[in-house]
This record gives sequence, structure tokens and C-alpha cells, in this order.
Amino acid sequence: MKILHTADWHIGKIINGQSLIEDQKFILNKLFDAIKEHDPDVVVISGDLYDLHYPNKEAMVVLEDALSMINLELKIPIIAISGNHDGKERLNYGERWFEKTGLKIITGYDDLMTPISMEGINIYVMPYFTPADVKHVFDVKTIHTHQEATEYIMSEMEQVMNKDETNILVGHLFVAGGESSDSERPLSIGTIETVTANTFNAFDAVLLGHLHHPFAIKSDFIFYSGTPMQYSFSDANQAKGYRLFEIDNKAFKQKFIPIEPRRSFHVIKARYEDVIHEKIEVKNNEDYFHFKLTDMDHVTDPLMKIRNIYPNTLQISRIDYEVAQDEIDVDVHTLSDIEIIESFYKHVTEETLEGIKKDKVIQLLESHLNKGANE
Amino acid sequence: MKILHTADWHIGKIINGQSLIEDQKFILNKLFDAIKEHDPDVVVISGDLYDLHYPNKEAMVVLEDALSMINLELKIPIIAISGNHDGKERLNYGERWFEKTGLKIITGYDDLMTPISMEGINIYVMPYFTPADVKHVFDVKTIHTHQEATEYIMSEMEQVMNKDETNILVGHLFVAGGESSDSERPLSIGTIETVTANTFNAFDAVLLGHLHHPFAIKSDFIFYSGTPMQYSFSDANQAKGYRLFEIDNKAFKQKFIPIEPRRSFHVIKARYEDVIHEKIEVKNNEDYFHFKLTDMDHVTDPLMKIRNIYPNTLQISRIDYEVAQDEIDVDVHTLSDIEIIESFYKHVTEETLEGIKKDKVIQLLESHLNKGANE
Repeated sequence: MKILHTADWHIGKIINGQSLIEDQKFILNKLFDAIKEHDPDVVVISGDLYDLHYPNKEAMVVLEDALSMINLELKIPIIAISGNHDGKERLNYGERWFEKTGLKIITGYDDLMTPISMEGINIYVMPYFTPADVKHVFDVKTIHTHQEATEYIMSEMEQVMNKDETNILVGHLFVAGGESSDSERPLSIGTIETVTANTFNAFDAVLLGHLHHPFAIKSDFIFYSGTPMQYSFSDANQAKGYRLFEIDNKAFKQKFIPIEPRRSFHVIKARYEDVIHEKIEVKNNEDYFHFKLTDMDHVTDPLMKIRNIYPNTLQISRIDYEVAQDEIDVDVHTLSDIEIIESFYKHVTEETLEGIKKDKVIQLLESHLNKGANE
Repeated sequence: MKILHTADWHIGKIINGQSLIEDQKFILNKLFDAIKEHDPDVVVISGDLYDLHYPNKEAMVVLEDALSMINLELKIPIIAISGNHDGKERLNYGERWFEKTGLKIITGYDDLMTPISMEGINIYVMPYFTPADVKHVFDVKTIHTHQEATEYIMSEMEQVMNKDETNILVGHLFVAGGESSDSERPLSIGTIETVTANTFNAFDAVLLGHLHHPFAIKSDFIFYSGTPMQYSFSDANQAKGYRLFEIDNKAFKQKFIPIEPRRSFHVIKARYEDVIHEKIEVKNNEDYFHFKLTDMDHVTDPLMKIRNIYPNTLQISRIDYEVAQDEIDVDVHTLSDIEIIESFYKHVTEETLEGIKKDKVIQLLESHLNKGANE
């Protein structure tokens, strides 16, 4: 049994006004080549196929093309679940026809306790849910956190599970200790998102989406595939690709296999003049750049000038301030709130916080702290 | 060969803030019952399945349910085309899987010259297009109107057509002489929309969508099915349903079959007090009403008061003005522009248009007319 595991395609993603759709078509073609080469028994997509609940029409065409190339052209089954970025109804549209050719897109709760059996292996699918979803659907009033919601689902699954067989879980969540990046969106606001690794102990292997780093967690049975391409400057220098599992009863081998994108993301710290005179080391001028620049006080419209040379520059920061910021030398653990604010104020304005300004800050601070206590 | 012909479902339609989705579910269930009863060889849906290019998720679920009940549950093929209200990419999403069970959703131009053959009959499908679409896709610079665009497509179709066989066209357009209603959206702005009936002479039968009245046109070979339910107050008292065709070589019988909606649309002219004291003749208080009311100068918040009795009142008009308007007795064909404006001004204000006001109107009128002449 061979599984190719991918996740977090985020089709339709736009960064700083730049659509990544051409990069996404490119990387999905590469992924298609890899699937053709490895010829897995199933492709697992662990959520966040789209970047938005309301994908634009171009994103829909790209997803349909990718799914049909794998499922109709190569005739390889697909198991996909919805992530926190996917709109369930939109991702799921057409599923009653899709399943006839082995393309399963699971966004609901009906089949949580009914694993998909392939080659004698049981694949449990758990689309993304909020604690409130689980509380509501299963009518369990005591659920408030992702941990509690996931524990509840796990305990239900364990009741139907045959532990002598090989059991795999496909999910979209944040395992505690995992490393997050700038390009994920919080799972839900105001709740602790993480779920501990041992929650999944009943499973032989867990194939996850949500965290974008392929090595987001160290575990011998829980794996993130990571995104197929870089999706933020915090992903710069990070390998991207997919995972390949070969499962033989309860034993399995797996490896991460990188794929080369159309354009990489780079963060480059340099003097403005060095960038503009191409005195920096860059392999491909067409890549995506975030330039952190010094010595540019005299420059007007730097983005336009830099884009003449590096057309896909997405961001420019002046880092004189940033460097200065590193120099704040206060120990926030030993200072009071107002002392921290005083230090910051002095650092930014080079003046002392005093008089009516200080009174106002204290007043705001107190009203804020009291409000928090009353909620 | 039996065809059940329907069109203009407009799923997701909202009138004056009132979602019609529950009415649409109801009517699609009735349509499903009719399809089950007649057991046609194919169901033809002549465009405008959705009301909006970006349907909401509820609309998507209703469409998917309706299509799957007909196509998967009853196993009856469907031929559907996009209308001017449908977003091609959204309506078409999943088509590569749908066609495997005989659900064809045609939104593009690739197969215009390739009829679908069923029971020895050729069904040509022509999704809605603008003149600019045809000009662009077929690279014909001389096309500017719907008439020219349709003539071009017809001449191309005629070249591949076997006229000895039975040829049917499915389209979404406005045939000249057809009767339009308030609930259609213009096909395109700034062009004449209509296409003459004789443009379609090569076909044995033409099954259309766009006009909402099932008897919008008198023809022995061109038919509108009309909408399955009323979609505006201009549809009040209008029968709604579907058409059933029985085709035997080039001969065919067809009939319009009405279906009863969950709620009808009514326009009621009455005194406010008569409405509020239920002294008007109404079969079902839950129907949709547009009340045109007199004698209500003293009433505050009439909509709320009327909705206590007729909860689905969508519109209220005071018709004192409207009645007065009927009394204007001028022949606009014999009067000059300024004379028409003078009459209107006098009618509305009960004063004579004169002095600086009249000068200003003349000035505006002239500048407007000159501007038009220069464009």
C-alpha cells in the first residue's frame, strides 16, 4: 500500500497583491509528475485545498484540473478533507459524482466513524472542525477546546476501531510542539489550538495538514506533508514537497520528497545601493523577494526602482528602525506594565513619558486591565 | 423520445430582501415528482440555473441536490446550458465527473458544432454568449449584435447539420416578439438583444430559456418553458411549470404543464384600512404580496402592521400618486420636449414652469441633446 501525502495547497493565495496562481499551476503539474512516477494506491490531501472559503473562478478551474488529472487521467483514488481555509459546501460540491471514480472529498461529520478501507488498511478521515462544531454536532456540552474536541472524536473512533488492523488518520490540526509559520491562519480565535501528540496514540500513522513546515513536528507516527510550495517569507529556505508512505501491515516507511518551485521566496538584508546595482547574490531575479534595506533615506519610490531589476519583489522594509529596535535592552519580566510602556515611549520618541500623557496611558491601561478581568 | 424542458431556475434569488430558497426547494421537489412521473429520456435545462455568478453556499447545495436527484437517483440524463445569470466556471465545476452519468453542463464553445445524439435525434446546445464572446472566440470582426452572433453560429451549425434528421436547439436568448417580464436581467447592456424567430429555421424545435413567461412567444417550433415558479410581481397570475415534448422523427407534440408553488405572487390594490381589517379577498395570507394602497396618509410604519397579517408582504406602494399619474392627458408624440416637461412639472407641482427655472431646464435639455449628438 503506497500513499502519497500532500496538504495545504491554498489555491488562489495572494501575497501582497501578487496572485500565486501561475506558481500553483506549475507546482501542481510537478506534483502530478511525481504521482505519475510513484503510482500510489491513493493520494491523501489533508485539507486547505483552497485559500479562501469563496474561491475565485480561476482557483476553481485550477483545483478541478489538478483533481481530474490525478483521478480521471491517472485513475488514482483521492482522499481529501476540508481544512480551516476551505468552505465545506464549495469544496464538497459535486462529491456525489466524484466518489464514483474514487475521488472522496470529506467535509462533514457523517462518516467520521466509518473508515475508508483500502488494501486492508483503515483510513479514518477527520475534516477540520472547531470545538463548537463538535459540541453542537455530537451534543456534548463539556467541549470547549480543540484538545477536548479531538479527544472526544478519538474516543468515539477507538470504540469502532479494530486495533489489530492498520489504522491511519487523516486530519487538519495543530499538534502541540509543532512549528508554525506566517502563512497559516489561526484555526479559531480565542481558543488554544493545539492538540497533544499522544491524543492520537490509537493510530499507526497520522497524516496531517495545517502546519506548513514538512518537519513541523518530530514524531515517529505523526507527519505533516507541508505545503507543496513556499507561501510566506518565513518559509524562505524551507524545502517543500510531499511525503510518500509505503505501508506493510503495521510497519511503514515514509520519506519527504522535495519539489522545485517556479520561484522561491527570499529575504535579503542589504544596503539599498547594493541591491539597485545588483551587488547582491541572487540566483534568479524573477524570484519573490522581501528586501530589508538600510541606507535609503534619500530614496523616493524604492519599490518601483527595485522592481525594474527584481520584478517580483513583494515587500521592502527599511531596517534602520528594526536594527534600533533590537537595541532595546529592558527585561520585561521584571518591569511593571507602565515601566515597559515608558521604556518603549522613550525609545521611539526620545522623550520621557510624563504629565498628562502619562496619566492618560495609566488610565487606559487600568481601564483595559479591569475590562479584561470583568469579561 | 420524450424531453422534459425547464429553464430559469434562478436558484438563490432574493426579492426585496426575501430569500426564495425554501420556495425553490419546494418547486424543485415538485419538478422532481413530475420527472419521476413522466420518466423522460432527457431533462433539458435552458440556462439560468443560478441567479448569480457567485451563488451562495445554500444555492449550491440546492442545485446539487436537484441535479443529483434527477441524474443519480432517477438515472435520467440532463442537458443544461449556462444562461446570462450563470458564472460559466462555477456552473461547470465538476463537469468532467458529471458527464460520466449523463449530466452534461455546457458553458463553453468547444462543442457548439457537435450535437448530442439521443434516440436518433441531434440536440445542439448553445450556452448564453454575448456578441463580443462570439466575435472573440470565432475571430469574426463583423459581429456586433445578438442577431449577428446568432446568425453566425446558426450558419456554422447548418454546415455540419444533417437536415434529413431531427435537429433540436437548446439556447438562452431573447426571440424578437417575445414578452419580457420584470425578473429577467438584460442580456447585455447597450446592444439590441433580440434575435428574429426565422434565424432558427434550420431546426425542428428550439427549446429556450431567458424569457420567464411560458407563452412568451407564439411559434410552432420555438418554445420557452418559463420559470418553474413566479419570480416577480409582474408574473402574478401567470401559470408556471415545465414543457413536455414527445418527438417522433420530425413530428412532435408538446404541452405546457403547470405546477403549484408554495406561495404565489399577488399585486393587490386596496384601501389601507381594508387590508388591515382583512376585508380583501386573499386565498393564503402566507403568499407574497405587493400592496398598492390608498388612504394611508395617516399611517406610520404600514409595512410592519401589514406583515402582522400578511407576513410575506414584500412591497407596499402608496398609489395616490400613481392614480394621479394615470390622469396626465398629453400626447407626447405631438409635443416638443420642453412642452412635455412643462406638462409634467405642472402636473406634479401644480405650478407653471417659468422664469429662471424654465431657462435652466431648457439649458440642461440642450446641453444633454448636444452631448448625445456629439458621441
